Amino acid sequence: MRPSGRAPDQMRAITIETGYSAHAEGSCLIGFGDTRVLVTASLEERLPPWLRGKGKGWVTAEYGMLPRATHTRGNREAAKGKQSGRTQEIQRLIGRSLRTVVDMDVLGERQFTLDCDVLQADGGTRTAAISGAWVALRLAVDKLLADGKLTADPIKSQVAAVSAGIHEGTPVLDLDYIEDSNAHADANFVLIGDGKIAEVQATAEGATFDEEELLRLLRLARIGCTDIFAAQRKATGR
Amino acid sequence: MRPSGRAPDQMRAITIETGYSAHAEGSCLIGFGDTRVLVTASLEERLPPWLRGKGKGWVTAEYGMLPRATHTRGNREAAKGKQSGRTQEIQRLIGRSLRTVVDMDVLGERQFTLDCDVLQADGGTRTAAISGAWVALRLAVDKLLADGKLTADPIKSQVAAVSAGIHEGTPVLDLDYIEDSNAHADANFVLIGDGKIAEVQATAEGATFDEEELLRLLRLARIGCTDIFAAQRKATGR
Amino acid sequence: MRPSGRAPDQMRAITIETGYSAHAEGSCLIGFGDTRVLVTASLEERLPPWLRGKGKGWVTAEYGMLPRATHTRGNREAAKGKQSGRTQEIQRLIGRSLRTVVDMDVLGERQFTLDCDVLQADGGTRTAAISGAWVALRLAVDKLLADGKLTADPIKSQVAAVSAGIHEGTPVLDLDYIEDSNAHADANFVLIGDGKIAEVQATAEGATFDEEELLRLLRLARIGCTDIFAAQRKATGR
Amino acid sequence: MRPSGRAPDQMRAITIETGYSAHAEGSCLIGFGDTRVLVTASLEERLPPWLRGKGKGWVTAEYGMLPRATHTRGNREAAKGKQSGRTQEIQRLIGRSLRTVVDMDVLGERQFTLDCDVLQADGGTRTAAISGAWVALRLAVDKLLADGKLTADPIKSQVAAVSAGIHEGTPVLDLDYIEDSNAHADANFVLIGDGKIAEVQATAEGATFDEEELLRLLRLARIGCTDIFAAQRKATGR
Amino acid sequence: MRPSGRAPDQMRAITIETGYSAHAEGSCLIGFGDTRVLVTASLEERLPPWLRGKGKGWVTAEYGMLPRATHTRGNREAAKGKQSGRTQEIQRLIGRSLRTVVDMDVLGERQFTLDCDVLQADGGTRTAAISGAWVALRLAVDKLLADGKLTADPIKSQVAAVSAGIHEGTPVLDLDYIEDSNAHADANFVLIGDGKIAEVQATAEGATFDEEELLRLLRLARIGCTDIFAAQRKATGR
Amino acid sequence: MRPSGRAPDQMRAITIETGYSAHAEGSCLIGFGDTRVLVTASLEERLPPWLRGKGKGWVTAEYGMLPRATHTRGNREAAKGKQSGRTQEIQRLIGRSLRTVVDMDVLGERQFTLDCDVLQADGGTRTAAISGAWVALRLAVDKLLADGKLTADPIKSQVAAVSAGIHEGTPVLDLDYIEDSNAHADANFVLIGDGKIAEVQATAEGATFDEEELLRLLRLARIGCTDIFAAQRKATGR
Repeated sequence: MRPSGRAPDQMRAITIETGYSAHAEGSCLIGFGDTRVLVTASLEERLPPWLRGKGKGWVTAEYGMLPRATHTRGNREAAKGKQSGRTQEIQRLIGRSLRTVVDMDVLGERQFTLDCDVLQADGGTRTAAISGAWVALRLAVDKLLADGKLTADPIKSQVAAVSAGIHEGTPVLDLDYIEDSNAHADANFVLIGDGKIAEVQATAEGATFDEEELLRLLRLARIGCTDIFAAQRKATGR
Repeated sequence: MRPSGRAPDQMRAITIETGYSAHAEGSCLIGFGDTRVLVTASLEERLPPWLRGKGKGWVTAEYGMLPRATHTRGNREAAKGKQSGRTQEIQRLIGRSLRTVVDMDVLGERQFTLDCDVLQADGGTRTAAISGAWVALRLAVDKLLADGKLTADPIKSQVAAVSAGIHEGTPVLDLDYIEDSNAHADANFVLIGDGKIAEVQATAEGATFDEEELLRLLRLARIGCTDIFAAQRKATGR
Repeated sequence: MRPSGRAPDQMRAITIETGYSAHAEGSCLIGFGDTRVLVTASLEERLPPWLRGKGKGWVTAEYGMLPRATHTRGNREAAKGKQSGRTQEIQRLIGRSLRTVVDMDVLGERQFTLDCDVLQADGGTRTAAISGAWVALRLAVDKLLADGKLTADPIKSQVAAVSAGIHEGTPVLDLDYIEDSNAHADANFVLIGDGKIAEVQATAEGATFDEEELLRLLRLARIGCTDIFAAQRKATGR
Repeated sequence: MRPSGRAPDQMRAITIETGYSAHAEGSCLIGFGDTRVLVTASLEERLPPWLRGKGKGWVTAEYGMLPRATHTRGNREAAKGKQSGRTQEIQRLIGRSLRTVVDMDVLGERQFTLDCDVLQADGGTRTAAISGAWVALRLAVDKLLADGKLTADPIKSQVAAVSAGIHEGTPVLDLDYIEDSNAHADANFVLIGDGKIAEVQATAEGATFDEEELLRLLRLARIGCTDIFAAQRKATGR
Repeated sequence: MRPSGRAPDQMRAITIETGYSAHAEGSCLIGFGDTRVLVTASLEERLPPWLRGKGKGWVTAEYGMLPRATHTRGNREAAKGKQSGRTQEIQRLIGRSLRTVVDMDVLGERQFTLDCDVLQADGGTRTAAISGAWVALRLAVDKLLADGKLTADPIKSQVAAVSAGIHEGTPVLDLDYIEDSNAHADANFVLIGDGKIAEVQATAEGATFDEEELLRLLRLARIGCTDIFAAQRKATGR
Repeated sequence: MRPSGRAPDQMRAITIETGYSAHAEGSCLIGFGDTRVLVTASLEERLPPWLRGKGKGWVTAEYGMLPRATHTRGNREAAKGKQSGRTQEIQRLIGRSLRTVVDMDVLGERQFTLDCDVLQADGGTRTAAISGAWVALRLAVDKLLADGKLTADPIKSQVAAVSAGIHEGTPVLDLDYIEDSNAHADANFVLIGDGKIAEVQATAEGATFDEEELLRLLRLARIGCTDIFAAQRKATGR
C-alpha cells in the first residue's frame, strides 16, 4: 500500500491552469498532486553568441524553488549567491528535454526561455516542470503562428516527464515526497509523444537495481506520460 | 483621468488568499490589482548570532521577483549570483516595517522569516508584500498561540503599506505600472493600525515636490491603508 | 539637552576643503562635525549602454566606508566580495539626489561618477556625502565650462541633505552617532536650492511617529540645509 | 566502421597506474584510450555537519578538468569563480556511484574525498573518473585495513562506469570524442560487481531512442564493465 | 635629470600626520610626495582560528585604493566583488613586513589589523603603506603599554620600505608615477632598523638587470630608509 | 647536512617530459625532485582588449594546484569560488617572467596562455612552473616557425627560476618542502640565459638577512639555473 493510497501505476491528479501569468508569451501553473510549478515561456529575439547568424533558434530553461516551497525553509539561492548543483542539473535537463521536440530551423533566429519556479514541492518538481514547460512553449508558439510570425510549426511532438521508483519493493509511478525519501531506486523518464525516449535518469538509493526493474519502471512511466499527454492536449486545445 | 479609470483616491482591488502554501506556518497570496505576491512566514528556533541568549525574538524578510513577473523578462538573481540593490532595499524595508509592530520580548527566542515572492508585477510590489507579510505573520503567530507555544500576543498592531504619487499633476493613490513609470513623484508609506507612521519614502522623479504635496500623498495613503487594514482583518478573522 | 550640547535646531560644524584630490576633475573633503567624507567627481566620456546615442548625460555615485571609519572595525567590502544592502541603498540615494538638479540634455553625452568614501564616521555619512557630492560636481562642471567643453550650465540648482530625528522626545537636527543610536525616529531629507523636496526617508525606530512630527523634522531639515547651501556656495565661489 | 577502427563492443585500452600521487592515501592515473584522469583518495577525520556523531562515514567527490585537457583551451573554473553545471553534475554522479558500494557503518566516522582531475580528455572522462575512483578508494581502504584502523572492509563490491551510444545508427561502446560529438544518443552506465545497476543516464541527442536501443546500450555497458572490473582487480591486487 | 628635478638618491618629502582617525587605536596619514595613504591599526581580541590558544598574537594587513586615487578612475573593488591580484599581493607584503619586527609571544593573544587605504597615488603606495603601518602600530602598542595591558614591548625594531629603480639608465630612489611607468627595473625593499633586509622584490620591466645594479638599488634603498626611520621616530616621539 | 642529503649547491633531479599533452601546441611535465608541474602552452588568436590592433602579441599564465598535490588536502579553488592571493601572485610572476624573454613585435597579434598545474608539490612549484613554461612555449613557437606562421623567432633567450634560502644557518639551493618550512629566509630568482636577472623575491621568515646573504643566495641560484638551462636545451633540442 502506498502512503497516499494510490495504486502502483496511478498518477497523482494532474492540474494545468494556462495563462497564469499576464505578461509571458505562454504560461501555466501545473500541479502533480501537491507539487505546483509556475512555468512561463519568454520570447527573446536575442540568441546565445555561438548561435547567431545561423538561421536557427534555441530553447533554454531556468529552474528555481521558492525558499518555503519545502517542508522546512531552504536558503534563497539569490541570497547565497549561487545556484546549487541540483538546480543546475534540473534546469539543464528541462532545456535538453524541450529541445528534443523543437525543430530549430523552423523556429528561426529567436529564443524561448522557460522559467520553471516551484511554488510548492511534494516530489516530482522536475517532471512537473518539463511537462508544464511543453504547455507554456506550445501556447507561446501558437501565438507566434496566430500572429503570422511563424508560418510552420517548429514543435514536432509532445514531451512529458514522470518519475517512477521502487518503494518498499514495489515499482510505483509518480513518487510523492514521502515515497521519494524512502525509495530504493528513483528514476526520471522523459518521453515524447510517439513513445520514444528522450532521457532516462535512474539512480540507486540504498539498493541497486537490475535490468528487469529498470524496464518495469519504464513501463510505469509510459502509463504516466499517457495521462500527462492527455492533460497537455486538453490544456492547449490540441 | 487615471489610465485605469480609477478615482485619485481609489485603491485597486485587494485580494488576499490565505493558506496558499501547505508547508509554511503562515502564508497568503496577496493581490493589489494585477500585482500578486506570495508571502510565507517561516518559524525558526535559530536566531541571528548577535541576538542569542537575550530572550528576544526577531523578524526578517527576503524579497524576490520571478524573472517573468514583469513585462519583459529580467535576469534571475540566483543565476547572476547576486541580489540587486533594489531587492536588498525592499527586503530591508519589509523586515523593518514588520518589526515595528512586534514586541520581541513577548515573541521570545524565535525568528520569523517572511519570504515575499512576486509572481506578477504591476506596480506596488513592495507595498503589497508588506501588507501581505502582516497577514502571513498574523496567521503564523495565531498558530503558536493556539498551540500554547505563546501565551501572550507579540503583535501589537496591524501594519500596511501603500504607494501614492503625483501623476500628471494630480496626487493619486496606489500607482500601477503605467502610472509609476510616468509619475513626477513617488512615495511609499508604511502605516500602523493606530494611524501612526512607520516609514515614509518619498522620491522626486523628474520634478521635485513641496510640503503641501507630501501631505496630500500622506492623506491618500491613510485612505488606502484603511482599506488594506480591513482586508487584513477579514482575511485573518481578526 | 543633546549629548553634544547643541541646540535642537543646530547643525554640527560644516567644513568643506575643495581640491582635496589632485587627479579628480572635482573633489572635496566635507565634514559634518567628526564625520568626514572624501568626494571625487570623475568625468568619463563612456555612458551606460541604455543611454548611448541619445544626446543625454548621466550622473551616478558609489559609496564606501573605510573599515576603521567606525568605532569598531568593520569588514572591508572588497574582501567580503560584496557591497552590503546598506551601501547599495546609500549610493543609489546619492546618485538619485544629484540627478534631480542636473539637466541631462545640457550635460550631453558624458557621465560623472561621484565617489563618496567615508574616512571617519560619526552619524550622517549619507547626508554629508550628498552635500559634498554637489560641491565636487559643481567644481568639475565649472572646469568644463571654463575649458569651453560646455557652453551652458547643466546644474539647475543646489542640492543638500541633512538628517533629523526624535531624540528623547525632542525633534533634533543633524544627529551624531550617539543620538542616531538612540533616536526613536530617524529621517533623511534631500532638499534643493529653491526649497523643494527631492527625497524624504523617515523611519520609525522603536516608536512610530505622526504627521505633526514628520513636519517638525522637515522644518528642522530646512534650517540645516540653509546652512549647508551657504557652505556649498562659499566653497565653490558661487 | 568506427572512426577509431574499433569493433562496436570494443573498449579502448584501459590503463591504470597506481600510487601516482605520493601524498594521497590512495591514487591512480587511469586512462581510457587518450582520456587520462588523475584520481586521489584523501582521508579526513572531519565529517559533513549533518553526519556528525552518528557513527557513520561518508564518501564524496570533486571533479575538475585542466584548461587545456581539451582540443581548444577552456576557461579555468577557479579563475571564473564558479564550477559549471556540467562539473557539478559529474562530481555529484561520482560521489553517488562510489557511495553505492560502501557500507557507511563499517567505514565509521571518517570521510574520503575523491578528487578526479582530467589531465587529457577524449570522451568518457566521467566514466574513467568513476572507474579510477574505485581503485583509489580501494587502495586507501586497504591501507587502513593494513594499519589496523579498520577491522572490517567497508567496500562491498566493485563499481565501474562506461558510456555507450548510437553512432551512425549503430550502438557502440565507450565513445571517444569524435563519436561523442556525433552520437544520436549517449548513455552512461554505472554498474556494480554483481551485475546490478547503480545509475543509468541516457540522453537523446538529435534523435530519440526506444526501449530496445536502451537495452542494447545496457548490454554493451556490461561488456565494457567486465573489462574495467578486471583491470581494477589487476591494479589493486584483488 | 629626473622629471621631478630630484637627485638620484633623493626621497620625496615624507609627511606623517598621526592620530588622523579618531576611532583607531593608532593611525596616521603618511605622504611620500603626492602619494597619501591613510593607515589605521585596529586591535581585536579575536585571533585567526589556527592561532587560538597558543599564547601568541598576530599582525595582518589590508590594502585598498580609492577609485579616483589615480589619474583615471579605476573600478571599485567592492563593486567588482573581488580584490585584484595586485591588491592581494600588496596586502600580503605589508602584513609579512610588519610581522618581521613583532615578537608574537610578547604581543600575546591579540591581533592588530593594519588598514592601508590610498587616498591619492603617485607611485610608491605599497612602500608608503608599510612605512606608515609601522607608525600606526607603534602608536597603538604604546597605548597598550601606557594602559598597562602590555608590560613588555613586542615591537623589536623599526621597519620601513622604499622603491628604487633604473630610470633612463640611472638608478634612482623612490620612484614617482612618471618614473615608475618608464623604469627598466623596479624594486621594492623592506628594511629593518638595524639595516637588515626583510624583503626584496626586484622586477625587470623591458630590460633585465645584473647583480651590480641590484646592489646599487639596495644601497639607494638604505639611504631612503634612513630618512623614513627618522620621520617615523619623529612622528612617534621615539 | 640537508634533510635530503644534498650538497648546499645541489639541485634536485630535473626531469622534463615533453609532449605530455596531446592537444596543446606545446607542453611538458617538469619535475624538480618530487615536485611535478604539468605545463601547456595554448595559442589563441584573441588578444586582451588593450592590446588589439597594435601588431603586438602577449604571453600570460595561469597557475593551479590539484587539491591533493600537497601533504594534506587543500580546498579546490574552483569550489571555493576564488583563487587565493598566493595563486594570483604566482601566476602573475610566471607571466611576467616569460614576457621578459619574448619580443612581442616579432610574436605579432597572437597570445600564448601558459597553464601551470601542480600535480604533486614538494617545494619550488613556482620555480618549476617558470622553468617548464619556457619549454612549453619554446615547443609551441617552434611549431609556428616550422609551419611558416612565424618567420622570425620571438624568443630572445632562455628563462629559468630556482629557489634558494637559508636553512639552519646555511645558504642552500632549491629548497624542498621540509627545508622550505624551516628556512629563515626564502628567495626565488628568475634568471635569463645571458646571466641577467629578471626577478628577485627574497623574504625573511623569522630572521632577517643581510646583503652578503642575499648575494650568496643569488650565486646559488646561478648554479641552479645553469643546470635548468641545460635540461631545457636538451628537452627542446636547442
